[in-house]
Amino acid sequence: MGIHKFFTSLNDLERIFRAPGRFKFEEHNVAAHSWKVSQYAMFFGTLEEMNGAKVNWKSLYEKTINHDFAEVFIGDIKTPVKHASIELKQMLAHVEEKMMENFIKEEIPTEFQEIFSMRMKEGKDNTLEGRLLEFSDKLDQFYESFAELKRGNTDKEFVIMYQQALKNLLKMPLPVSVRYFRNEILSDVIKEDTQINVAALTHEILNKLNKK
Amino acid sequence: MGIHKFFTSLNDLERIFRAPGRFKFEEHNVAAHSWKVSQYAMFFGTLEEMNGAKVNWKSLYEKTINHDFAEVFIGDIKTPVKHASIELKQMLAHVEEKMMENFIKEEIPTEFQEIFSMRMKEGKDNTLEGRLLEFSDKLDQFYESFAELKRGNTDKEFVIMYQQALKNLLKMPLPVSVRYFRNEILSDVIKEDTQINVAALTHEILNKLNKK
Amino acid sequence: MGIHKFFTSLNDLERIFRAPGRFKFEEHNVAAHSWKVSQYAMFFGTLEEMNGAKVNWKSLYEKTINHDFAEVFIGDIKTPVKHASIELKQMLAHVEEKMMENFIKEEIPTEFQEIFSMRMKEGKDNTLEGRLLEFSDKLDQFYESFAELKRGNTDKEFVIMYQQALKNLLKMPLPVSVRYFRNEILSDVIKEDTQINVAALTHEILNKLNKK
Amino acid sequence: MGIHKFFTSLNDLERIFRAPGRFKFEEHNVAAHSWKVSQYAMFFGTLEEMNGAKVNWKSLYEKTINHDFAEVFIGDIKTPVKHASIELKQMLAHVEEKMMENFIKEEIPTEFQEIFSMRMKEGKDNTLEGRLLEFSDKLDQFYESFAELKRGNTDKEFVIMYQQALKNLLKMPLPVSVRYFRNEILSDVIKEDTQINVAALTHEILNKLNKK
Amino acid sequence: MGIHKFFTSLNDLERIFRAPGRFKFEEHNVAAHSWKVSQYAMFFGTLEEMNGAKVNWKSLYEKTINHDFAEVFIGDIKTPVKHASIELKQMLAHVEEKMMENFIKEEIPTEFQEIFSMRMKEGKDNTLEGRLLEFSDKLDQFYESFAELKRGNTDKEFVIMYQQALKNLLKMPLPVSVRYFRNEILSDVIKEDTQINVAALTHEILNKLNKK
Amino acid sequence: MGIHKFFTSLNDLERIFRAPGRFKFEEHNVAAHSWKVSQYAMFFGTLEEMNGAKVNWKSLYEKTINHDFAEVFIGDIKTPVKHASIELKQMLAHVEEKMMENFIKEEIPTEFQEIFSMRMKEGKDNTLEGRLLEFSDKLDQFYESFAELKRGNTDKEFVIMYQQALKNLLKMPLPVSVRYFRNEILSDVIKEDTQINVAALTHEILNKLNKK
Repeated sequence: MGIHKFFTSLNDLERIFRAPGRFKFEEHNVAAHSWKVSQYAMFFGTLEEMNGAKVNWKSLYEKTINHDFAEVFIGDIKTPVKHASIELKQMLAHVEEKMMENFIKEEIPTEFQEIFSMRMKEGKDNTLEGRLLEFSDKLDQFYESFAELKRGNTDKEFVIMYQQALKNLLKMPLPVSVRYFRNEILSDVIKEDTQINVAALTHEILNKLNKK
Repeated sequence: MGIHKFFTSLNDLERIFRAPGRFKFEEHNVAAHSWKVSQYAMFFGTLEEMNGAKVNWKSLYEKTINHDFAEVFIGDIKTPVKHASIELKQMLAHVEEKMMENFIKEEIPTEFQEIFSMRMKEGKDNTLEGRLLEFSDKLDQFYESFAELKRGNTDKEFVIMYQQALKNLLKMPLPVSVRYFRNEILSDVIKEDTQINVAALTHEILNKLNKK
Repeated sequence: MGIHKFFTSLNDLERIFRAPGRFKFEEHNVAAHSWKVSQYAMFFGTLEEMNGAKVNWKSLYEKTINHDFAEVFIGDIKTPVKHASIELKQMLAHVEEKMMENFIKEEIPTEFQEIFSMRMKEGKDNTLEGRLLEFSDKLDQFYESFAELKRGNTDKEFVIMYQQALKNLLKMPLPVSVRYFRNEILSDVIKEDTQINVAALTHEILNKLNKK
Repeated sequence: MGIHKFFTSLNDLERIFRAPGRFKFEEHNVAAHSWKVSQYAMFFGTLEEMNGAKVNWKSLYEKTINHDFAEVFIGDIKTPVKHASIELKQMLAHVEEKMMENFIKEEIPTEFQEIFSMRMKEGKDNTLEGRLLEFSDKLDQFYESFAELKRGNTDKEFVIMYQQALKNLLKMPLPVSVRYFRNEILSDVIKEDTQINVAALTHEILNKLNKK
Repeated sequence: MGIHKFFTSLNDLERIFRAPGRFKFEEHNVAAHSWKVSQYAMFFGTLEEMNGAKVNWKSLYEKTINHDFAEVFIGDIKTPVKHASIELKQMLAHVEEKMMENFIKEEIPTEFQEIFSMRMKEGKDNTLEGRLLEFSDKLDQFYESFAELKRGNTDKEFVIMYQQALKNLLKMPLPVSVRYFRNEILSDVIKEDTQINVAALTHEILNKLNKK
Repeated sequence: MGIHKFFTSLNDLERIFRAPGRFKFEEHNVAAHSWKVSQYAMFFGTLEEMNGAKVNWKSLYEKTINHDFAEVFIGDIKTPVKHASIELKQMLAHVEEKMMENFIKEEIPTEFQEIFSMRMKEGKDNTLEGRLLEFSDKLDQFYESFAELKRGNTDKEFVIMYQQALKNLLKMPLPVSVRYFRNEILSDVIKEDTQINVAALTHEILNKLNKK
C-alpha cells in the first residue's frame, strides 16, 4: 500500500489518550497534543529569534509535528514504566525504532522512504530545535496538569506531574525561553483562581531551585 | 494578561468539534484536525519540491498550524450557513477578523502583536503554500467523510461531503499533487472494504469531471 | 419529502450542545434545554395567572417548544459572535429566517406550511407569552451556570454567564415572576453548599441593582 | 425547600437514558425525549384539528411535557420488567404515584401543590389528548429504533422495538393520525437507504395487520 | 440457544451504570463493580481465615461474581424505589427470580440448569460467605461515594450514600473485618486530601455509633 | 499506607481500555474484562469437572480475578509491541514483576505481602486452572472482536483478532472445553445475523486447521 495507509493511520492518534488510567476532568489525545506543542514551539522559536538565535524553522516544525507519531505503534506507555530502568527505556526505544523502520519499508512509497526515516527520528537532540521541542513538550505537560489542578483534581499524580514539568522546564538549556517562562508565564499562572493551591506548589519548586 | 492566556486558549480548540449536529461514529476536534492538515501539507509540500517547486516551509507550516485558530471565537459554524450568501460570508469573515484583532491587542504582549497578526491572517491565498493549505484542509474533509462511509454511516450529509471534497480536490490548481492524489491515493481508497459503496461514489465524480 | 424529514431533524438537536468550546462538567443539548424551558414557563405562567394575568397557553407552550429549532440550521453560535455587532446579529437573524423559510417550503407538506411559518417565528416578542419565553430561556442559562459553579468550575465564563443571566432576569418586565424569583428562588440558591462562592456572586449583582 | 428543588431536579432527567443496558449507536435522555414527544403531538394535534376535532391544547402540551417526569424517582425501568405481571405493573405505578405525592408534599410550595398533582397524573387516558400523548410517545420509540436499524444495529431488541411500536401505532384509536402515519410517513420511511432492511420489517407488520 | 446467549449477555452488564440519574465525575458499570467486589472479598476472606474462620472460597467467589447478574433483566433500579415499601421490594425480588428462572430454562443448556439456578440465587444469606458478600458490596458503595466527595461532588446524595454505607459496614456481623476496616482503612481514608470534608462526615457517624 | 491504597487502585483499572488506539463501537475496560473472564472460567471449570477433572476452584477464581491487575502499572500495551521480540517480551514481563514486587512491599501491609505475591504471579501456567485462565482470556478476545464484526466494524485489526483468538482457542490443551466451544458455541455464533460475514471468517480457520 501507499501513502493512503499512512494518512489513515493519523486518525489512530486521535484515539490514543495521554496519561492512560488516571482520573482526569478532561482527556487529551496525541494528535491534539502534537498541535499544541507546535504552537508553543512557534512562540518560543520567535522569542529566541528576536533575541538573536538562528532558528531552522522547517526542522523545528517537523520535529514538533512528528515527535509522537511512533505512539501509533506502542500507545502511550505509562511514564513510570518508561523510567523503570535504563535498559528497558533503551529497549523500548529500540523496538519503537524497528517498528517505525518496518512501517516505512512496508507502507511508505520508495521515493519517500528516506525523507520519512529522517523526519520520524527521535527529535530531542542538542540542536536549538531539539531543545525547543523538548521545552514545548514539557510545557504541554505543565499545562495539562495545571488545568486538572485548577479544577480540583485531588489525585497526587497531577501534583507530581505539575512539579516535575515545572522543574524540568526551569532547568532546560534555553536561557531566553526559560527566563520568559519564569518571569511572564509563571507570574500569570500564580494569579489564577484555582481549586488546588497551584501558587504554593509553584513556589515550593522555585524555592528549592533557588537554594541550589 | 500575557501569552499565558493565549496558551490556555489552545485547549479550547480541543472542545470545538467539527460538523456539529451530525451523527458520526467518531468525533474530530479542531486541534487534532489542524495537526492532520499539517501532516498532509508536509507530504504534498515534499512532493511538489521533488517536482521542482520552491516551497516556503516556514510559511506552509505556520499556515496549517494556525488556519483554524479563529474558531476559538466563533466555533465551527455549520457549512450551509457560511455559504448562505456572499454577504453573510464576508460579514462573518469580517467579524472573525475583528475578534482576532481585538484578541491580539488585548491578550498578546506588544512585542509579538505584529507577528501574530500576520500569522493569524486567512492563509488560503494564491501562493503555493496557500494552495497547499487549501488542498490539505479539503483532504481532511475527504478522509473524515470516507471514515464515516466506510463504517456504514447512512446520513446523506457524508455522501455529499465526500463527493464535494473529492470534486474540490481534483480541481485544485496544483497539478502535481492532484495527479498523485488521483493516481495513487484514490486507487487505494477504491480498493478498501467499505459498508457504503465508496468506489461507486468516487467513480460517479470521476466520470462527471471527465465528461467536461 | 414530507413530515418524516422534519421528524428526523428533531434528533439533530440532541447533538447540538450549548456553550460549545467551554469546559463543562456536564453538557446540555438543545432538545433537553427546550424541554426545561417549557417546564419553567409552565410554572411562571401558572404564577402569573394566579396573580390575575390572562395566559394564552397554546401560544406559550408553542413558543417554548419551538424557540431554538432554528439551531438545526446554524448550530449554537458562540454568544460573543452574536453580539459582535448589531449588523451581524441582524444578518444572522435574517439568514436563519431565510433558511427556515426554505426548509418549510421544501420539507413541510403544503397544507402545514402556513402554520409552521407562524410557529417557527422568533417568539420573544412583547406579549406576556413572549416575555415568559425570554424569562424561562434566561432561567435555564442561570441554572446551567449555577450547576457548573456549584461543582467548582473555575472558568471565568460561567461566572460571567451566571451574573449576566441573573441581571437580565431581575430586569425583565414581569414584576410578579421577578419578585418570586428574587424572594423565593434566590434565597434557596444562596443557601446551597457550592464549591465556588455563588452567594457572594449573587449579592454583588443584587447590590449593584439596588444602588440604581 | 421551594420550587428551586423542583427546577434542579429537571436536570436529573438529562441523565436518565432510555433503553438502559442495550447497545446503541446513539443515546437518548428522557428530557430530550419529552421534547420530541411534544413536537410530534403539536403536529398530530394540528392534523386532528384540521379534520374537525376539538383539541384542548393546554392539556395536550402539559401531558407531553410532564409524561415522564416520574422517571426522576424510579429511572427508566426495563420494559420487560414493567410487563412481567399485571400485579407488578400496578404496584410500580402505585409506588411511582406515592413517590410523586410525597415529592409534591415536601418540595412544592403549598399554593402550587394541587395544580402539580393534577399535571403529574398519568396522562394516557381516553381523551383525545391522552390518545395523542400515547401515539406521540410510541412514535418516538418508532423513530429511536428506526435510527438504530438505519445505521446497522444488529441487536434483536431494536427489530422487536420497531415492529412493536409500528403495530401499536397502527392500532391506536386515532383514525386520522393513523391514516396519515400510514400513508405519508411510512411511505417515506420505506424509501430510505438503511443498513438493516427496514422496508421488509415494515411490510411484514403491514401484511399481518391486513390479514386480520 | 445455548451458552453463547449467556456469554453475550455478560456484555450487557458493561452498559448498566450504577446510581443512574445522579451527576457523577466518574461512571461505574455493573461488570466492573462485580470485579471490585470480588477483590474486596478476596482480602476480607483472607483476613477472616487468618483469624481462624473457615472460608468456603468457591462459594465466596461465586457469590461475588454472580451477585448482580440479575440486573441484566431489571437494570439498576434506583435505591429509593427498592426501599419504598416491603411489599414492593418483595415483589421486585420475586419478579427478578421469575425472570432468572425463565432465562435459565430458555437459554441455559439442560445439563447446566440446576447448577446455574443455585449460583444465581440471592447470595446475601447468613453464612460467612453471604456476610462477606454483603460487606464487600457495601464497601464498593463506600468507595464510589468517597471518590465523588474527594473530587468535590456537592450533590447531597453522595454524602448520604457515604454515611449510609459507612454505618452499614460498621454494623455488619463480621467483627474481625469490621475492626480492620475501622482501625486500618478508615484512618487512611481520613488522612486523604479531599474537596468535601470527608473526615468530618466520617467522625459524625463514628460519634453517633459510639453514643449508643 | 495500607490496604486502602490497594483498594483505590482497583478503580484505575476501570480507566484502562483494551485495544487502545483502535476504532471500536464499544470500549471495554480491564476491570469489566476480568469479571467476564471469571464468568467464562466458572462455566468451563464446571464443564471440565462434569467430565471428571478435579478443579481447584479457589485457585481458578483467584487467577482470573487477578490476571490483569499488573496493567495498573503498565497500561494495556499494544499487542504488536508485546510480540515485537522475545527479549522485549521478557523484559516487559520482568519490569511488570519488579513494579508489582515494589508495590507489594510499599503498599500492602506486611502480614499480607506473601499471599499477595503468590496471587499476583503470572497465572497462565500448565495446571488445569492456568489453562482455563488462558482459554477464558482468549474467549473474551473472541467475543470482543465478534461484537465489533457483528456491528460492521471494517477495521482489519478485528478480523485478525477474531481469527487469531479462534485459532488459539481451538489449539488449547483442554480437549473437553475445546470440543464444547467448537460444537456448541461456534455453531450458535455462525447462525447470527452479522454485518461482516463472521461465518465465512470462521469456516476459513476451521478449514485451515482441519487440513493439517
